[in-house]
Amino acid sequence: MSKVLNGRPDVSDRTRTLVQDALVRSGYRKRASNDAPPLIDVVFSDFDSPWATEIVRAAAAAAQREGLTVAFTALSEGEERRVWFDHITSRGTRGVVLLLSELTERQRGELVARGLPFVVIDPTAEPGPEVSSVGATNWSGGLAATNHLIELGHRRAAIITGPPALLCSRARLDGYRGALERAGIAVDEELVRPGDFRVKAGYEQAKVLFGLRNRPTAIFAGNDLAALGVLRAARERLLHVPGDVSVVGFDDIPLAAWSTPSLTTVRQPLYEMAEVAVRILLESAESGPLRRRVELATDLVVRESTAPPAG
Amino acid sequence: MSKVLNGRPDVSDRTRTLVQDALVRSGYRKRASNDAPPLIDVVFSDFDSPWATEIVRAAAAAAQREGLTVAFTALSEGEERRVWFDHITSRGTRGVVLLLSELTERQRGELVARGLPFVVIDPTAEPGPEVSSVGATNWSGGLAATNHLIELGHRRAAIITGPPALLCSRARLDGYRGALERAGIAVDEELVRPGDFRVKAGYEQAKVLFGLRNRPTAIFAGNDLAALGVLRAARERLLHVPGDVSVVGFDDIPLAAWSTPSLTTVRQPLYEMAEVAVRILLESAESGPLRRRVELATDLVVRESTAPPAG
Repeated sequence: MSKVLNGRPDVSDRTRTLVQDALVRSGYRKRASNDAPPLIDVVFSDFDSPWATEIVRAAAAAAQREGLTVAFTALSEGEERRVWFDHITSRGTRGVVLLLSELTERQRGELVARGLPFVVIDPTAEPGPEVSSVGATNWSGGLAATNHLIELGHRRAAIITGPPALLCSRARLDGYRGALERAGIAVDEELVRPGDFRVKAGYEQAKVLFGLRNRPTAIFAGNDLAALGVLRAARERLLHVPGDVSVVGFDDIPLAAWSTPSLTTVRQPLYEMAEVAVRILLESAESGPLRRRVELATDLVVRESTAPPAG
Repeated sequence: MSKVLNGRPDVSDRTRTLVQDALVRSGYRKRASNDAPPLIDVVFSDFDSPWATEIVRAAAAAAQREGLTVAFTALSEGEERRVWFDHITSRGTRGVVLLLSELTERQRGELVARGLPFVVIDPTAEPGPEVSSVGATNWSGGLAATNHLIELGHRRAAIITGPPALLCSRARLDGYRGALERAGIAVDEELVRPGDFRVKAGYEQAKVLFGLRNRPTAIFAGNDLAALGVLRAARERLLHVPGDVSVVGFDDIPLAAWSTPSLTTVRQPLYEMAEVAVRILLESAESGPLRRRVELATDLVVRESTAPPAG
């Protein structure tokens, strides 16, 4: 039998077939060792945004360059998540990239116990010391966006935040507060509005802001989608952007350059973030668990949606 | 040895380990028969569009409901494609969904020979009788978009096509021609401009159209991204949409409802298209090759970007 297993030529075809059949019936099969590309899992809780699209695309490209197959899963909460978790080890994944998607402590423990590395992109909460994570410099980005508005002369700049529970939302908000305070401008809590990174919330919160007796002359939106909602609300109020109100986004999704007006925004290096995540995963798989916390720099991209305040 | 393979309890741990080690060294491993979810492959040539994002998301959701893992690959031409093709069978895929991505005749033959079903979403060329495909009623969609403009009173409606080589582009163009002819309006070839489904080409072709001595009063863009490019070009020429020029898109991507103005467009049922593709794949895997050609109906969605021509 070992002659068959080792592919020795001095075995009759019939014997080979008999042994191989026995193996297959018993649940063993030939492992396509050099042929089968190993898998990595990419998991996101919400694929419905250009942000996630960019990262998934970049992760796929980075993984392909390494000869890896990417299995991807859009996870909601609850049962589906448990089923997925039961599946990942059985399909022989080399590691898991999580996008804005937290595991329970028990699940994290299981991954560690099975020696499966994982990396969180944009962790929803401060990751523990045992968790590798990749993000952007959200605080610096919020600071840069707000400083840009202050330098243009704005004194009433509002913010529509991302989901308040997310770490990146809180970092951007703190950057906004920090910039205002450093400029000696008191934060008006009326101008701090909760959003959720979607167009609709941007639209609705902008309508609230435009309805204030003393309306803001500028809005820093939580991300580019929210900024597109702000543009929409401005148009309905017949407010000109940037003449009547300046708008800053966050992310620099491909459409940011093509909106009307084009968006001043804070560019996140989404492509590089995904590449770094895949690289950390592969290094962990080779040399044992690495605990890395990487923040890649953001850039302010000034386009048409910001200008000095009127009057 | 067969005692080990069959999991008999009357085998010492040491023997079991020895045999299992021999198996592993020889490239055999235990197949996680009931645990490992089967794979399907989703392959696209261009992930850089909301169109592809919607379909990939829907395919992932449909596959997950069936307990399948989705492995996805963004393929460019050439070497990468050959490597991918060598990989798919070795990873035990149950079938392949191709998005706007054609295989060579040889590769199609190999898939058929290996009994691997595949389905093409939006085939780039007329699929042969042996190929299952899913698409939308692109000709009817082009007809409906153009009829809408004619009914509003437009007599000079231009079209910016998708990539001329694609079947869906040609079907939309023929729908446009058909609607004009039926209304007794001669097709002015100056108003038929080649695009490529990207924002930039929409923008550039619109600039050409707006520069004509007798410029069109309406533009049917190849898809929503191209329509966003048209909106941008209109703004630069200080043309009001829809007052000075009407614009119709195609796809109804999520952002179409949020652009400024919101887009009148032809909705493709992208979600359903992906679901049907996965279903055809699973049925083929169970009951042998099925050859299906499905076209799902499109809907005209009228929003703000169309109106009767001025004057």
